[in-house]
Parts: sequence; C-alpha cells; structure tokens
Amino acid sequence: MSNGRAVNGFLLDITGVLYNSIYKSDGVAIAKSAEAVDFLYKHSNVKFLSNAKGNSNRNVARRLQRLGINVREEDVITPAPVVAQYCREHKLRPHLFVREDVLQYFDGIDTSSPNCVVMGEVEEGFSFERINRAFRVLIDMPKPLLITMGNGKFFQRVDGPCIDVGAFAAALKFSTNCEVLNIGKPSRFYFEQGINALGMKPEEIVMVGDDLMSDVGGAQACGMRGIQVRTGKWRPDFEKLPVTPDLTADCLYDAVKLIADNGFRL
Amino acid sequence: MSNGRAVNGFLLDITGVLYNSIYKSDGVAIAKSAEAVDFLYKHSNVKFLSNAKGNSNRNVARRLQRLGINVREEDVITPAPVVAQYCREHKLRPHLFVREDVLQYFDGIDTSSPNCVVMGEVEEGFSFERINRAFRVLIDMPKPLLITMGNGKFFQRVDGPCIDVGAFAAALKFSTNCEVLNIGKPSRFYFEQGINALGMKPEEIVMVGDDLMSDVGGAQACGMRGIQVRTGKWRPDFEKLPVTPDLTADCLYDAVKLIADNGFRL
Repeated sequence: MSNGRAVNGFLLDITGVLYNSIYKSDGVAIAKSAEAVDFLYKHSNVKFLSNAKGNSNRNVARRLQRLGINVREEDVITPAPVVAQYCREHKLRPHLFVREDVLQYFDGIDTSSPNCVVMGEVEEGFSFERINRAFRVLIDMPKPLLITMGNGKFFQRVDGPCIDVGAFAAALKFSTNCEVLNIGKPSRFYFEQGINALGMKPEEIVMVGDDLMSDVGGAQACGMRGIQVRTGKWRPDFEKLPVTPDLTADCLYDAVKLIADNGFRL
Repeated sequence: MSNGRAVNGFLLDITGVLYNSIYKSDGVAIAKSAEAVDFLYKHSNVKFLSNAKGNSNRNVARRLQRLGINVREEDVITPAPVVAQYCREHKLRPHLFVREDVLQYFDGIDTSSPNCVVMGEVEEGFSFERINRAFRVLIDMPKPLLITMGNGKFFQRVDGPCIDVGAFAAALKFSTNCEVLNIGKPSRFYFEQGINALGMKPEEIVMVGDDLMSDVGGAQACGMRGIQVRTGKWRPDFEKLPVTPDLTADCLYDAVKLIADNGFRL
C-alpha cells in the first residue's frame, strides 16, 4: 500500500461490522470490534451509518453497549428519523409499515389519507396482511410513492441470509408501478447524513461495511473511500461484482489498525 | 359487430368471472354465471382455465357447485397439477412453497436437495419465514429457478384488491437473480393445456377473463380471441393498457348470449 491520502473520519456500518445479528436476541459482537471503536473514538472521528430499521437509535446503541461495544447514541444514524424528517419537509402523510420502536420518530406527522407508504419492516412484524395494506394504499394513488428504509437484497443473521426490504419494494413496484425512494444506503441523500455528521469533506472519510454494493460502492459514488470487511454478509463471490473496494480487510479492527499504522492515510 | 368467425369452444377464467372471492369463505356467485355455464355445457364446448393456486381441482369444482355453478371437476385446469407434471418430466426436485390442498399433486416427487422453488402461496399461508425459506433455497443454487403458479400483479377479493404471487416472484428475483418460470396464464405453455383440453385450434376458441393482460392479452398471443368482462378485477383504467379485447361485456352471461345470438360467431 502506498502512503495514500489522509483519513480524517470513519463511517462504520453496524450490523455485520460491529456485531452479527441473531433473531430475537442481541446477537454477538464481532471479534475486536469493541477495541476498534474505542480506538477510533480516541484517535480519530467516527459515526455509525446503518440501514437498521427495526429499532430507535437509543435501542441500537444500548444493544451494542450490552455487547461491550461503546457506541454513543448521538453518533448513530439510522433511516427512521431521517425518513420522518423528510416527510415533515415534504409535507408527506405516510402510511407507516414500520416497526413499533421507530414509530416515535413519526409523532406529530399526519398519517390520515396517506400520500405515500414508508416501509421498514421485515422479519417478525412482516405479514401478508401488512404488505397487502401497503399495496392497497399505493394502488389507490394517482402517483404512488414508496419510501424504503434501505433497499437491500438480503441481510445476514447468524442462522443465514434473510430476504430484505429491497425485495418487498420490488414486489410493491411490480404490482403498483410505484416510484421507490430509498432513504438508506446506498442513496446519496442518506450518505450525506453521515458526511454532515462528521463535518468534513467526503474525500477525508472512509466508509467501512460488509455490503459491497450498498456500503462500499455507495460510499465511493459519494466521493468517499469504501472498505470491505470479510464479516457479516460478505461472500467470496462479491469479487465478481462490479465494485472494487479501496481496501479489503478481514474485520473492522484489521482495517482500522492498517490505516492507523499508516499514519491515518489510505 | 360483423358476422365474424366461428366460436367452437370457450375457455373461462374462474375467479372474477364465475364468482367473486371472499377471504376464508366460498365467495359469491356473479349474477347469471351459473346460467352461462349451463348454457355452454349444452350448446358449445367449455373448459375452465384458472390461475387458482390454493385448492385442488376437486375443491375448486366443489366450491363452485356449492355456489350453484355446475362446473365439472374434470373440466377444471389449475396450475398445481401442471407444475407437478412439469417437475416430473424435467426431473426437478422442488422446494414447495404452496398450499396444503395442492400438495397431493406432488406425491411421489423427490423434494430432497431441491433444485428449484415452486411458489403458489399468498394470503393466509404466506409468512416472512416461508418466503425466507424459499429465498435461502434459491440463493444457494448456482442457477436458481423459481416456478410460479401465475404471475399476477394482484387478485381481487370482495373486500378489495390483494397483492399476488407475481409480486413475490419479483421479490425473490430481486434478491436472488433467479430465473422465473410462470406456469399459469399468461404463459403459452399453460394456455396450451386449455387448448389441448378443448381439442381444437386456438382460432376456434374464445378466452373469457377479468384480467386484461393475463387472460385477454395472453389468449390473443396464443391465437385465441380474448374477451374482457367488467367483473372481478376489471378496472376502468384497463383502457389505458396496451391490449384491445375482441369483445368487452358486462359479465360472462352477456358475452355468451351475444356470441350465441350471433350464431356462435365473433
């Protein structure tokens, strides 16, 4: 590796980078991710940019803390509050197909006679009845709009990969021809939340993630550098995909150590 | 209407043409559909080509009989037995994501180490866990193949439209890049089941359905004439779609009467 360019800030994906997800449990920390986070808080700048859609930022941070990973709530960025703010600014009245824990962000937003659907629900709260309700709202709109919290193909749990919200967005688009607006990685709008939170230029920042297309490719498209870790949803066949990470490391700790040992340059 | 060409056989869609569907009940007969069926049995040739995926042909016929519509079981064509036959002929080992009532058609077919997924389940038997199991089977295949029983955008229940199996096929395709093989209308292979059952040339047959693209357009693409009825899932905005029916009638009875009064020509 050459001397490279300065790295002044880190955006870290959470699931698959800091910990691995287990259904209906806190999951398990990924080895040395806690050390990596402590190190970055001490020696650099760090924010956490996740597509997690099931929990409030408070509960995301608390879960990590229970796993021994000291992430501060105020440094966590998840789609739900960003989507709620977007609805406020654009006077949208969403039909909410979301988890109970994130409903709080939509307090005070008019949800009567909806003019869009907000979707951020998979796993236990997902049902035919709920996606059908979203379908019925969309099919009745002259210009149906679906806002999704992320657009992933799948997420990774310890027991295996799981079909993600992007698939159900494709389902609703197939049946209603709706416009799909992703507020989550890899959308530029969402990456800008992380860039603004760090308060620096994209070229000073590295994004570390386990999803090659969404984390790495998305960050690169916004002018950041993208680092792929071989944890979480990483699969060997990612090498066939049309994105080349600026760095690939076995885990977050290795990526951070390598950059730090290089004088915070990559 | 001009004198037209001879109509020697009728293929009738079932749901939305003979009766309207109600969740967890037999549904309600559409006015005069029973008379139309009796008339066709007496004066012409008739088979029933449905994308119904939840029940065996026997139970489809029995339901109609309970509604006073005298359809014979042996004249009913639904996707499940056709899919099962396809699996036998192509030595496929399906993972079955289907209703319990149609499992009988797959008796004797090896379902261990599946090399395809067969999907024919929406509504009450649909769950995140079940679509996720189908997803996991597909994501592990080198060349994932999904066979769907129909590929509809939505089906119509008395309480409103419902998102249909085509949407969930789009979801699985989004996440696994699987090939999707529809064995149901509007696939030519499936229409041929109806044409062969009538034992005549496509140009002698009219297909009557409530789905403009799948029933009417699909039949026309196979050389039959397609008749749209304004029952079931029919919507006024069908007129914007790129298929022109050979005839549009308020209901099956009106279509049959009009053709019969014209000397069985259209």
